[in-house]
Amino acid sequence: MSTHPFDEALQLQAAGEHRWRGTPHAAYWNMVGPFGGSTAATLLQAVLLHPELLGTPLSLTVNYAGALTAAPFEVEARPVRTNRSTQHWSITQTQPGDDGQPVVATTATVVTAARRDTWSLSDVPMPAVPAPATVEPVTLFSGVEWVRRYEMRPVRGPVPRRWDGQGEDSVSQLWMRDAEPRPLDFCSLAALSDVFFPRVWLRRATQVPAGTVSITTYFHAGAAELAQTGTGYLLGQARAQEFRNGFFDQNAQLWNEAGTVLATSHQIVYFKQ
Amino acid sequence: MSTHPFDEALQLQAAGEHRWRGTPHAAYWNMVGPFGGSTAATLLQAVLLHPELLGTPLSLTVNYAGALTAAPFEVEARPVRTNRSTQHWSITQTQPGDDGQPVVATTATVVTAARRDTWSLSDVPMPAVPAPATVEPVTLFSGVEWVRRYEMRPVRGPVPRRWDGQGEDSVSQLWMRDAEPRPLDFCSLAALSDVFFPRVWLRRATQVPAGTVSITTYFHAGAAELAQTGTGYLLGQARAQEFRNGFFDQNAQLWNEAGTVLATSHQIVYFKQ
Repeated sequence: MSTHPFDEALQLQAAGEHRWRGTPHAAYWNMVGPFGGSTAATLLQAVLLHPELLGTPLSLTVNYAGALTAAPFEVEARPVRTNRSTQHWSITQTQPGDDGQPVVATTATVVTAARRDTWSLSDVPMPAVPAPATVEPVTLFSGVEWVRRYEMRPVRGPVPRRWDGQGEDSVSQLWMRDAEPRPLDFCSLAALSDVFFPRVWLRRATQVPAGTVSITTYFHAGAAELAQTGTGYLLGQARAQEFRNGFFDQNAQLWNEAGTVLATSHQIVYFKQ
Repeated sequence: MSTHPFDEALQLQAAGEHRWRGTPHAAYWNMVGPFGGSTAATLLQAVLLHPELLGTPLSLTVNYAGALTAAPFEVEARPVRTNRSTQHWSITQTQPGDDGQPVVATTATVVTAARRDTWSLSDVPMPAVPAPATVEPVTLFSGVEWVRRYEMRPVRGPVPRRWDGQGEDSVSQLWMRDAEPRPLDFCSLAALSDVFFPRVWLRRATQVPAGTVSITTYFHAGAAELAQTGTGYLLGQARAQEFRNGFFDQNAQLWNEAGTVLATSHQIVYFKQ
């Protein structure tokens, strides 16, 4: 029986047709509520547990409607349409409100697919970076629990040491993996797609409150690429495109050490003036 | 009363709380079902018509679960959580199946937001390209109705003239706008985010069946930027990152002629071997 904290965080109990119950895990706590990546992984896990599941994850969109508390939550994961090779899912995560009625904390949609071998080609080669062992690991922020669950070795664009408003670009590259080794799976890949600190901190060299509003991850990995990766490092690259009136977007790519793209991801993030 | 075909395509009749009815418009017909961009715009329109709407569109994810027929459809657009400055929407589009029961054709999530003026910055400058008037307009595919609704002036990466398997990259740039002038709004911006032909055709110079599975668009424009754009051209840029086992992803950016980013968009697309 695994005692890895990520497996503990993914624990869900069946609670009727299309329904599961769980509790946010303290090991993945962020400043307010759990790390968004672990929430995304939990919603994906509900799909993966579903008896009607077809195929493997292709696309995951998670909308963070309100912060989860440390209390139990319920997830409804419903297959709304099953085709020959794709399946579409609608997911809602709720917690009881003050009046006991369920309040929506998170919504998500997932597409799963039975994939076939076809012509394949990568149009975004992995950037040339030093090997993981030659890059110093850092702890992003002491006092934030979830960051301790990941080993992070920044190659480019680390968290600014001086908040002097003198940022130059929004690109970060880092080698990363679970701090306690755990073979990569779709849920941990979903979580790793969201480990990048807010681009506004880097571009402005100014630390302002920020939080993901919506994230979409496309899974290019199948079982073979996950197995090839194992407990190895991923190279993550993130950059913003546009900061405008309280929100910015962020693109990310995740490669394994062999240079295979495992996932590409995008998010829109709230930031305070 | 407008007779613009896009306004006709956006026509929805109220059908009870959170519900609307409409019919796909023949002017936006694709090879199988309507142009995905017009479907996305229609689902967004249901949110914009909703009496409880807060703010303007920030994020739109549309999942194409099955092709729409030319028959009437129903849209349910439900505000699942309203915060002080953001609102989260879940949308489902159905058509009656053979047994008369509703079948899900499309799902979507939308986030709307009341936006404030803040520090803003563009981290992806518009590429240097010739002015629209100096670029020849083309008709992408004769016989496909929706492409006639748009004026398209390709700057780079046009549809291959020879399907010889000799593609070099997946980048397209084109000036584009409604063929019949219509001031830009959120719905037409959502549709324009999906006009790019499948990247696999460009990268492989091979024409294979392909279709969008899921698209996410982030709106950076507010009312001021829409008004600034009016009936002018947008520069659209699209590129793929990864083609793998039947699916590829595509990133897009849309600028107005003044060089302002109006939207960034991402999609995952099915393709046949």
